[in-house]
Amino acid sequence: MPSLVSMLQVNHDRLMQSIAQLADIGALPNGGVERIAFSEADCLARELVQRWMREAGMQVRIDPAGNLIGRYPGRFSQSEPVAALATGSHIDTVPNAGHYDGAYGVLAGLEVVRTLRDRQHVLDRPLEVIVFADEERTMVGCKALSGNLSPDTENYRGAQGESIETCLSRVKGDWSQRHSAQLTTTDIAAFVELHVEQGPVLETAQKEIGVVTGVVGQRRYVFTVEGQASHAGTTPMPLRQDALVAASRLVLAVHALGNQPGDQVATVGRLDVSPNVANTIPGRVEFSLDIRDLDDDHLERLMAKLEEDVTQIALETQTKIRLTPLLCNHSAPAKSHIQNAIAQVCESLSLSYMHLPSRASHDAQEIARITDMGMIFVPSEGGVSHAETEYTSPEQCVQGANVLLHTLLRLDQHYRRSA
Amino acid sequence: MPSLVSMLQVNHDRLMQSIAQLADIGALPNGGVERIAFSEADCLARELVQRWMREAGMQVRIDPAGNLIGRYPGRFSQSEPVAALATGSHIDTVPNAGHYDGAYGVLAGLEVVRTLRDRQHVLDRPLEVIVFADEERTMVGCKALSGNLSPDTENYRGAQGESIETCLSRVKGDWSQRHSAQLTTTDIAAFVELHVEQGPVLETAQKEIGVVTGVVGQRRYVFTVEGQASHAGTTPMPLRQDALVAASRLVLAVHALGNQPGDQVATVGRLDVSPNVANTIPGRVEFSLDIRDLDDDHLERLMAKLEEDVTQIALETQTKIRLTPLLCNHSAPAKSHIQNAIAQVCESLSLSYMHLPSRASHDAQEIARITDMGMIFVPSEGGVSHAETEYTSPEQCVQGANVLLHTLLRLDQHYRRSA
Repeated sequence: MPSLVSMLQVNHDRLMQSIAQLADIGALPNGGVERIAFSEADCLARELVQRWMREAGMQVRIDPAGNLIGRYPGRFSQSEPVAALATGSHIDTVPNAGHYDGAYGVLAGLEVVRTLRDRQHVLDRPLEVIVFADEERTMVGCKALSGNLSPDTENYRGAQGESIETCLSRVKGDWSQRHSAQLTTTDIAAFVELHVEQGPVLETAQKEIGVVTGVVGQRRYVFTVEGQASHAGTTPMPLRQDALVAASRLVLAVHALGNQPGDQVATVGRLDVSPNVANTIPGRVEFSLDIRDLDDDHLERLMAKLEEDVTQIALETQTKIRLTPLLCNHSAPAKSHIQNAIAQVCESLSLSYMHLPSRASHDAQEIARITDMGMIFVPSEGGVSHAETEYTSPEQCVQGANVLLHTLLRLDQHYRRSA
Repeated sequence: MPSLVSMLQVNHDRLMQSIAQLADIGALPNGGVERIAFSEADCLARELVQRWMREAGMQVRIDPAGNLIGRYPGRFSQSEPVAALATGSHIDTVPNAGHYDGAYGVLAGLEVVRTLRDRQHVLDRPLEVIVFADEERTMVGCKALSGNLSPDTENYRGAQGESIETCLSRVKGDWSQRHSAQLTTTDIAAFVELHVEQGPVLETAQKEIGVVTGVVGQRRYVFTVEGQASHAGTTPMPLRQDALVAASRLVLAVHALGNQPGDQVATVGRLDVSPNVANTIPGRVEFSLDIRDLDDDHLERLMAKLEEDVTQIALETQTKIRLTPLLCNHSAPAKSHIQNAIAQVCESLSLSYMHLPSRASHDAQEIARITDMGMIFVPSEGGVSHAETEYTSPEQCVQGANVLLHTLLRLDQHYRRSA
């Protein structure tokens, strides 16, 4: 009965109540939430979501990497193993977080299952809702799923310095078995993550839904500029080797790089001056570069341009400038058939939408390594995220959940045909 | 007997031994010296210099502001009060100082008296050697002499937070009587300070002596740039209000100001970014401006130009930029007849010389408010000062002391004619 299915809508009040109830766990006096991964609040929140999953008719499992997975059976799964459709996100938070980052995607996925179950509707394929372990700090959960864990266990320590073994034991994971958490396209046919944008693009463009084109590639570097500290009075201008003058030129070169044609962003967020005294010419400056783009080749070209600038600026300011790479995440494009499905759903629901890249990290970027991936964004008021003032209206939350529901329904048909 | 007098030379070994002996008080393991004003080391050093002054035939007094003054009587002073010729500097130091800053000028002045006394030569006028109290931290001594003390006593607290009353009582001063420390042109006819350059100008120009044209005026400001902190990934370039981009443009505007035609220097030495995190666009930057020039009107014009830049940059970067004045010291020009005397002495002693401003602060800048002032510089190796590696060779120290000796002899004649 496609006509009935096409009219399905999630339950507004139930979704918003779930978001509010989860936000009670780790609630801060300022209205924000703090559920650091593997903390007591995180564990309590995971237990609540597990209970809700079971109540919604899902089979619940926890993989060795601490990912909590609820499975709503499909028609096919009764007889033979079949790749699931999956959605989900995370419920751990940064310090002083808001109500929506991560939690919204998990609870909207749960609400999709609840809505299907209300109508006793099942998909051909099983539908999984995944709560990834520790998205905000180490991404240990999604990296284990994609088989992309770093060999260095130190990278996955808890916020208090606890070993990852200890952290995982708190959530019934098992680090020694982490490799068996890895999934493939035979386990998940497609993954769709619903998330708040965490930026101002949708709000500025006055669009209700963002069709994510992919998660951008990201590079991080530390720049070190070595000049010569000396007396700000007695050192004539032509004899100076001012590390801050060189660094300021680089900050502007980075900004110009960000403003070149293209979709990239480039930021110097941290800058430390030494000795940092009013009457001493800066002898040393260290600063960060964060540069992101959906096109990894474009990132390479931008960095090559910047390295030319570095050489020129070092020469002209008589300083030494060193670049140390810190991080290199490749971009994770969203599959075009999933982008198309999301866009078609928006049209059928009469929701305004636009395509945009995700310039923040998400669990989806790891899952894109192993299977088809797509993402749906809803607007963030003022572009604010990672703050207690993070806000997306109930209406926008419900719109996004309905888009997720109907996208999954469409994908179920898509994979039926392609299976 | 002018021919004999014109052959006078200071005693090389005695001068260098005195410098070495004084450097033993407060000596650091790294070869540096630490004699913070009013500390035990400072008090011990003052006692040693007092003893040396007495041994050189000087009458010693300590004024209420803690200035230690040795007076070598002149011919005129036997019968009637007459304005003295004066030289001197300071023997307190910054933390981790070298052997020369301040101490050299005091000990060279003492050596001039010793040399005169060796030959039983007296000037027409009394010759005073002044050890100014606390030059490095508060300039309380020279400011009291010039009647330029701030009404706010808090400005003169000791390095450990002690009251100025306590500090002065350690050196037999008396804060309650500070106003009587003020001198006028009837007390001092002229003051000549000999000092290490503390910069690289003489060394770079390969000159043995610097004829100081004056102590520059100095302004200090704090700039506050308010932008909008936001996510370095999710905030598109055109929607940013990046406080560090604005601040970087200002750092370069300050640098350009310093490089305009003229003798000014302009420096951003301190710069603090907030929140200073790699993946957050800087929301706030605070930085210092230090700008110096011998011409106060030129300083005004430079600052007016900078304020135009500030308005323009604030507009273009969508930030708010605030300037807070912290310090405004007016310039203190050296008298041309003293500059001429120094230059003539250099020529008669076959020493190479050049004119240059002092861009560091000195006791002389305060004394210029009340009487004729001049300064003599000797080279600083590598321009280094306020560090244990500060160095001026014995030969250069002796050259400077001889220039001081003969400049004072010339000035004695000058004021005889003009008296």
